[in-house]
Amino acid sequence: MNPVGGFRLGTVRAGIRYPDRRDLVVMELAPGGTAAAVFTRNRFRAAPVVVAERHLALQTPRYLLVNTGYANAGTGPRGETDAEACCRALAGAAGCAVEEVLPFSTGVIGEPLPVERIRAALPAAVAALSEDGWHAAAEGIQTTDTRIKLAGRRFDPGGGGACVVTGMAKGAGMIRPDMATMLAFVATDARVSAEVLDRILRTAVDRSFNRVTVDGDTSTNDACLLAATGAGPQVADAAAVERLQEAVDAVCVDLARAIAADGEGATRLVDVVVTGARETAEAERTAFTVAESPLVKTALAAADPNWGRILAAVGRAGIDDLDVAGVTIALDDLVIAEGGARADGYDEAAAARRLDRDEVVIRIDLGRGSAEATVWTCDLTAEYVRINAEYRT
Amino acid sequence: MNPVGGFRLGTVRAGIRYPDRRDLVVMELAPGGTAAAVFTRNRFRAAPVVVAERHLALQTPRYLLVNTGYANAGTGPRGETDAEACCRALAGAAGCAVEEVLPFSTGVIGEPLPVERIRAALPAAVAALSEDGWHAAAEGIQTTDTRIKLAGRRFDPGGGGACVVTGMAKGAGMIRPDMATMLAFVATDARVSAEVLDRILRTAVDRSFNRVTVDGDTSTNDACLLAATGAGPQVADAAAVERLQEAVDAVCVDLARAIAADGEGATRLVDVVVTGARETAEAERTAFTVAESPLVKTALAAADPNWGRILAAVGRAGIDDLDVAGVTIALDDLVIAEGGARADGYDEAAAARRLDRDEVVIRIDLGRGSAEATVWTCDLTAEYVRINAEYRT
Repeated sequence: MNPVGGFRLGTVRAGIRYPDRRDLVVMELAPGGTAAAVFTRNRFRAAPVVVAERHLALQTPRYLLVNTGYANAGTGPRGETDAEACCRALAGAAGCAVEEVLPFSTGVIGEPLPVERIRAALPAAVAALSEDGWHAAAEGIQTTDTRIKLAGRRFDPGGGGACVVTGMAKGAGMIRPDMATMLAFVATDARVSAEVLDRILRTAVDRSFNRVTVDGDTSTNDACLLAATGAGPQVADAAAVERLQEAVDAVCVDLARAIAADGEGATRLVDVVVTGARETAEAERTAFTVAESPLVKTALAAADPNWGRILAAVGRAGIDDLDVAGVTIALDDLVIAEGGARADGYDEAAAARRLDRDEVVIRIDLGRGSAEATVWTCDLTAEYVRINAEYRT
Repeated sequence: MNPVGGFRLGTVRAGIRYPDRRDLVVMELAPGGTAAAVFTRNRFRAAPVVVAERHLALQTPRYLLVNTGYANAGTGPRGETDAEACCRALAGAAGCAVEEVLPFSTGVIGEPLPVERIRAALPAAVAALSEDGWHAAAEGIQTTDTRIKLAGRRFDPGGGGACVVTGMAKGAGMIRPDMATMLAFVATDARVSAEVLDRILRTAVDRSFNRVTVDGDTSTNDACLLAATGAGPQVADAAAVERLQEAVDAVCVDLARAIAADGEGATRLVDVVVTGARETAEAERTAFTVAESPLVKTALAAADPNWGRILAAVGRAGIDDLDVAGVTIALDDLVIAEGGARADGYDEAAAARRLDRDEVVIRIDLGRGSAEATVWTCDLTAEYVRINAEYRT
């Protein structure tokens, strides 16, 4: 991972829910930097989401505070008080205003935050701050993830040397409210205004995290933050902004795909690519309907090229005037259904081979336009049910 | 089951896909009767759905022909030709016009109908027609169902003696495109106009089958038909129509709940009751979001009173101005969450006991109005995944 000048990370074991586990991460953004963030759209919002949004509206953040173990969601009025107390403790240890700290929590819903344990561990986390802290931090934000999720790009904004974009995420199940759920932190050393940064983040999230689904459930704690330290070259003209957008998009897509691949119980990452739609929204809706169909997802687990289930999901995606005879379905490069029926020369064994892979591509052409969209998902296995049925007990 | 005067059923073993299994059902509606039907809204429509809808627009049906084994869906242009050929064969055996026969198929998608085997078995099915044929027919329309689904009511339309409403359904998984999927046939001996019957059926389906979900997938072959033979009392004035509506509603709700209870891999029937909504659509959308959440459904499998998952599903049901603090969640009579947090005095063991039953009730009060809706579903078990991942192989 490329470190980002002006962005430091410190990770410690605070014993928040389990002993001897990296569970507390502090991140520091150099003075003069800018930041943008997006938060869950679920109406059931965790206390740290409410507090982070409030602080972000008041000040450019200097510190981000992430704890795992407890989500501080469904904790009633004391949830915000506890989140503020943690921010105040970090502000004291680091020497900044309380509004310059944004809190993020992930873990079990409904249990109060162990504020004392977090407070006690903060000085060590601040002392550990380092530009090389990405790997430890990517581990420190995990809950049920089976692997760390890091991604990076470099780009040249035009003349002033290279910029770096580095990001990390956690999430395994989009979304699992109990381990509430997706957090992503992306930093760049570009010098860029807060307004431009905000636009770039929203665009990137729409193209990445908002297009990944493991189970269709969204979380109370989802958050994605993009920080720009300004330690590197300026990004101001349209061409440079476009290059930054591309780099942030690429990092976010890498992280989003890593989340789908690490979906609870998943054995395969699945790209659902819909083309030939009249509008992007139509392509997106179709891709999501296929990607969230339990019948499609269980067939994928078995490497069963069940085109009937895919076609039936397309048929209920809400396109009122869809002519199913115009729809073509392919697995990677192999067409398996067209004209509302199995493709001529369909070879079940060849189709099954296209599915018996770690990464699978389902291509659906609606044959009615030129808009397209891709959604990332994973298969649905008995292991998903086991994880989610047994998690609390 | 109460037989319905003027409505006869004949069931035989035609060897359509498996030997020695009841797989072909013929139903006969007395001359002068009326009928109404609703079909799948999936854009991927099976050939028999297309043909049945066409015939119904031309003539009052005299005969219904149901085969299991093959759905005659995704079969291309020959699908309609085959469905018409089966109708023609029954018309010949029974002595009616081809348009007076409505075809229904359920079974595997993508394989052609074995027309010859169906044709050969039709004379025996016609010979077997009997008003006492409900039980055998309810078995004859099954695919992966683990139990037959029959329901009945009697009502007095006012002075002219009692009317009977009897119905049967198949479906285990709402919806499983491979065993494409839900069929329901309801008959009454009431004398009632086709217009009134159509309105009664659409209302009843909205209150019953359209509110049941096993996995959110809809089928290519869904159909529900209501026949009125006219052998019994007249149903004409508003009060009598209302009584018929109530009886048909009750039969359809019984059948819909039986489908949810027999959901693939299900161990419990779950009523999701949403009250306190501003509008019925809002209550319905909330109930469906909870009923289709994989996280809620896996928790139900484990009898885990996971109110956080329920609240998070409510939070993403698309009510933009929802105040989560006003939401109350109860299991049957036991309140488990209120004010956006766990209820005071929450007792996990007592809550778990409310879930460790064959029939579970989740009550969600949104605290913002007086509209309500109920949706029926089941839990999501590893067995569901096993059935759907292994079905084709």
